[in-house]
Amino acid sequence: MVPPSILAPVTRDPALAAAIMGGLRDVEATFAQQLRSDVPAVNELAQHVERYRGKMLRPTLLLLSGMAAVGARDGAPLKKAHRISAAVAEMIHMATLVHDDVLDEADTRRRGRTVNSLRGNETAVMLGDWLISNSFHLCSLVGDPAINVLFGETTNILCEGELLQLSRREDPTLDEKTYMEIVRRKTAALVATCCSLGARLSGAADEVQAALSLYGERTGCAFQIQDDVLDLAGEEAVVGKTLGRDLEKGKATLPVILLLRGASPWERSEVLQIIHRRDGTALLERLRRSGCLDEAKATAQSLVDAAKVALDAVPAGPARDLLRDLAEEVVRRQA
Amino acid sequence: MVPPSILAPVTRDPALAAAIMGGLRDVEATFAQQLRSDVPAVNELAQHVERYRGKMLRPTLLLLSGMAAVGARDGAPLKKAHRISAAVAEMIHMATLVHDDVLDEADTRRRGRTVNSLRGNETAVMLGDWLISNSFHLCSLVGDPAINVLFGETTNILCEGELLQLSRREDPTLDEKTYMEIVRRKTAALVATCCSLGARLSGAADEVQAALSLYGERTGCAFQIQDDVLDLAGEEAVVGKTLGRDLEKGKATLPVILLLRGASPWERSEVLQIIHRRDGTALLERLRRSGCLDEAKATAQSLVDAAKVALDAVPAGPARDLLRDLAEEVVRRQA
Repeated sequence: MVPPSILAPVTRDPALAAAIMGGLRDVEATFAQQLRSDVPAVNELAQHVERYRGKMLRPTLLLLSGMAAVGARDGAPLKKAHRISAAVAEMIHMATLVHDDVLDEADTRRRGRTVNSLRGNETAVMLGDWLISNSFHLCSLVGDPAINVLFGETTNILCEGELLQLSRREDPTLDEKTYMEIVRRKTAALVATCCSLGARLSGAADEVQAALSLYGERTGCAFQIQDDVLDLAGEEAVVGKTLGRDLEKGKATLPVILLLRGASPWERSEVLQIIHRRDGTALLERLRRSGCLDEAKATAQSLVDAAKVALDAVPAGPARDLLRDLAEEVVRRQA
Repeated sequence: MVPPSILAPVTRDPALAAAIMGGLRDVEATFAQQLRSDVPAVNELAQHVERYRGKMLRPTLLLLSGMAAVGARDGAPLKKAHRISAAVAEMIHMATLVHDDVLDEADTRRRGRTVNSLRGNETAVMLGDWLISNSFHLCSLVGDPAINVLFGETTNILCEGELLQLSRREDPTLDEKTYMEIVRRKTAALVATCCSLGARLSGAADEVQAALSLYGERTGCAFQIQDDVLDLAGEEAVVGKTLGRDLEKGKATLPVILLLRGASPWERSEVLQIIHRRDGTALLERLRRSGCLDEAKATAQSLVDAAKVALDAVPAGPARDLLRDLAEEVVRRQA
């Protein structure tokens, strides 16, 4: 199994790589088992979304945090609860992808057709619900109510982030602070939960769990900013999904917020006209010229730097080193 | 507090009525507490769906089953776990209503505007997700993993029922058996879980739990058939929600399945043309003339009769009597 791009750094340490690859194989097997239905029409859909699995960022961070938190050099601290929780996190993420594609009217995901484009929005909504339901069902099989509470809190926050973003569409007054609040909720909260839960399940001290939560939150925010940059300036063939959706859907993301903030009243009205016309080419040209794309990337990089600082409270070792490398990969990636 | 129509029979026994009304007030309070968010835009939406609460069938059945299962004459057996579980069931139901309205493109619910018609499909999808997430979070606060597993299994089945129905839209070969399978999954499963869980939380014997599960499944199926009859033949002003959605959305329900089954090849092609034209008036006229509406109602009534027979295994007493009356109310209701 060749690890997807985001996991490339993992291969540097064979013992850790083996533990993570083994854990991810377990996640795959858990998926296949959980998403089996006695309704054939449902099985067909489940097989389709199986293909959505991509970077496996969340389960990887959960497993790696489970090792880093106790300074492990291999997979010894990883228990069944880690592996099930990793599968739960990825299943929640997959459910959000299915509903995101409905919200974004996207046609392509991981180089394949989206459920909504193939089978209509109604089936995509219900399939997403089924995935959410399955993720909670799987989670409850661990038998520890605290894990259910934690994931429940996290998905509440995630949905609130999406609702906050929806309530501020077509709103040129959206500021950087609110944008970061949206990103923290809709993306970083689940990443942070993965990191702190991995540590908690390994029996790590509270301060190590908190440090990994902070690492996850900052890495998650950086990840989303990079996603938003790629949606504006990435190449569809490289990224493998429909791009330009944020502009199309009236969502202002960091580069655009920075552009509007730094503009004169005259430039501002021009940019608002470009946005109103949904003119992606003109917008990208302005973003490049103004340096706002680079500024957004610099913000993501500073979050990665801060995430690495948070790791100072985590025992030194190869797993911690890998967490540092993964944080860098999050902003380096072009897909 | 005047009980909604479906609860009218409850008032016949003051001690049981007081226990149920108290329990439903707790459900309301639990809702208000759980659905409080630090994101103002989310609170606004939560207040809107608060108005969706109508018949409270599921929490009522859970509470009443909790009493009937042990032959109680008042609310003595009802614990905190009953009340939280009742709120969980109603919250799951409310989430499905929000997503159903997206699927059905409905404008009106409980005499008010639907979330999708007011704020768009995207907000309605995400609000439904937030409600699902909250229901699981609330469920995990009971601290008993078995309850999480049970609700998780139930919502898996519920979503599978919806997906099965979606996969068979615009399909005139849909037969009564598959229709009943859809109904059992999308509606009756949650009702059955409410009844059996109420009994289980009261410490009832396994056979009493099983009997109440059967009662709930049959009552739930009858409830859905009556819903489908009202969608075809009800009055919008009385029912209080958008009707005719099943025809509009290409969903064949029991009366139409019976009509097609009993038709000559010639009549069959006429009915298919009427369906294709979405001509609700002509369809209703055919259904009335053929006796298929009455036949569907008779099927619902026979399910109610069978539900009452299932109660023979439940201790005699006023709570069991009320369960019998409620089953009758399910098919008598016009709203």
